[in-house]
Amino acid sequence: MRGVLDLPAELVPVQDLILRSLHRVEQRFDAQLASDLPPVTAMCAHVERYRGKMLRPTLVVLGGLAVSDPAEPVDDRLVTDDHVTLAAVCEMVHMATLVHDDVLDEADVRRRGRTLNALHGNELAVILGDYLIAGAYDLCSALDTTLAARMIGQTSMVMCAGELLQLDRREDWSLDRATYFEILDRKTAALIGTACELGALATLGYRSDPRADALGRFGRTLGVAFQIQDDLLDLTGDESVVGKSVGKDLEKGKLTLPVIIHLEQADLHARARSLDLIERARTDPASAARLAQAMLESGSIGAARDEAERLVDQARTALDALDPSPARTLMSLLADAVVERAF
Amino acid sequence: MRGVLDLPAELVPVQDLILRSLHRVEQRFDAQLASDLPPVTAMCAHVERYRGKMLRPTLVVLGGLAVSDPAEPVDDRLVTDDHVTLAAVCEMVHMATLVHDDVLDEADVRRRGRTLNALHGNELAVILGDYLIAGAYDLCSALDTTLAARMIGQTSMVMCAGELLQLDRREDWSLDRATYFEILDRKTAALIGTACELGALATLGYRSDPRADALGRFGRTLGVAFQIQDDLLDLTGDESVVGKSVGKDLEKGKLTLPVIIHLEQADLHARARSLDLIERARTDPASAARLAQAMLESGSIGAARDEAERLVDQARTALDALDPSPARTLMSLLADAVVERAF
Repeated sequence: MRGVLDLPAELVPVQDLILRSLHRVEQRFDAQLASDLPPVTAMCAHVERYRGKMLRPTLVVLGGLAVSDPAEPVDDRLVTDDHVTLAAVCEMVHMATLVHDDVLDEADVRRRGRTLNALHGNELAVILGDYLIAGAYDLCSALDTTLAARMIGQTSMVMCAGELLQLDRREDWSLDRATYFEILDRKTAALIGTACELGALATLGYRSDPRADALGRFGRTLGVAFQIQDDLLDLTGDESVVGKSVGKDLEKGKLTLPVIIHLEQADLHARARSLDLIERARTDPASAARLAQAMLESGSIGAARDEAERLVDQARTALDALDPSPARTLMSLLADAVVERAF
Repeated sequence: MRGVLDLPAELVPVQDLILRSLHRVEQRFDAQLASDLPPVTAMCAHVERYRGKMLRPTLVVLGGLAVSDPAEPVDDRLVTDDHVTLAAVCEMVHMATLVHDDVLDEADVRRRGRTLNALHGNELAVILGDYLIAGAYDLCSALDTTLAARMIGQTSMVMCAGELLQLDRREDWSLDRATYFEILDRKTAALIGTACELGALATLGYRSDPRADALGRFGRTLGVAFQIQDDLLDLTGDESVVGKSVGKDLEKGKLTLPVIIHLEQADLHARARSLDLIERARTDPASAARLAQAMLESGSIGAARDEAERLVDQARTALDALDPSPARTLMSLLADAVVERAF
């Protein structure tokens, strides 16, 4: 979002509404984390550097708008206090995972010397992440319904299970596609689906509705595509554009779709050579570049990109359950942007 | 609890009821963490080693019994499904903090070589802790009321703020009593107070009641005493009895009450010597033993113990708001046990 999309004129009012809504979300986010203890507020400032594209809040707002009464004028009142709360909650849960992802293992510490969070240490990262999760949960249990808190609690469990599965399969170079997709679906896609669905439910008075279900499917499918694109960027991205170090997945022993496809395609001999290159690519940038080149030539990077695009098409199909609206169009454009992005 | 107390005959039926209830709590705990993914369930088995005295679940059950109708027979039905859920929730939140406390800083990694969680690494500890927190939130948002979820969310935020404050003051040897108590109150006492209060609220249909408030005060005051005793055991305890390594607080740069009192009492010259000894005690067991001996002789260990006992008396005063009952008597005995324990 955020000026990424070059939009036709009729969509501009909705885009502006979303930008104003995101500003409200940021305010709620900051207010929720503010503490009566000045050092706590000061330490929370470190959370700022994890702030990103606000994809999940955008989807909460769009999900809410996509099921609102088409007769209503596009107006700030369409984005209710509940939408703002739920958007802030989803972003807090997401940022908690980013903060906790930065906690390093002893192995990483040894390998890297000065680390990502060398400035403040693992313990601060752990507690700040916990503070974000607690803040999210506190915020959504202040709503009049228990439904949102339940969905956030359940989604958080699903996300952790995905992370645990990924950790369990670390350095397992025989990881298959099915398990890879299982990990992505839980770790990344579940929260994106929940964001879309919760946005719709808040508009619909938290009554179950096939449109909310459809939006949940849209988000969940899009979320898988989003993570594949993330994985592609980790392999082929430009650090100065991606905004974070690339090649981290292999370094951490995580197989991603292009690598899985590359290994699937190889005969036994080629596979042995690829595995050897993968092992070296984990610590040596030159080997990582050669691996990326080999995957480009074998077509596995293209095949992974095709898979992401197929999933975006599938996600868009879920939107057919909704009446046409500027919000629906924006969601469709956003879905394209997810796989076209270079960051 | 758990057979620690040598009880008069009239209290035995309530103690037995509590033991049966704790069994139900353990079952709910395990069922909540079970996953459809076998590796996740296998990894959750690591949580087992953090299982301890079940103080918080015991207090949920006792809090519930202490406000129940005295005309009701002592019966398993007094401990409702909500009590079991809330007890499991409080234990999950507590265990999440234990698991996350085991995440080590780079500094610790460097200092210690093979670490507490060397077997499985920081990343597993982070995600398992997150899974416990998510499990707790999910479980309590399945109740019919949002009150419990709100109290748990707010208590979690308070706990994290306490941890952040403690982290901020690490290696600050001028930490004063007021800040020390602020840290304890938030980090440890808040959840113990919430456990007592939630137990009562579940019995009272989640209607606000001065007895629930009184139980909250009881737990919160007791919680501070409990943490002082923990700090004392970290200095003076026998590792084989305490069940975890001692001397960790100083090693991590955390000042505790006996040390604060010891430094308060010292004149400038003695203070400089004590600070020097503290610094050495962080890495050298012989210096740590000498420091403990010096604190014993200066009376600061005794003074810290007196303070814990004074808080236990104060906690017991809060129980005066309740009608006499076997549960109230047990809570009073439990309060004594907290400061008398050697583990």
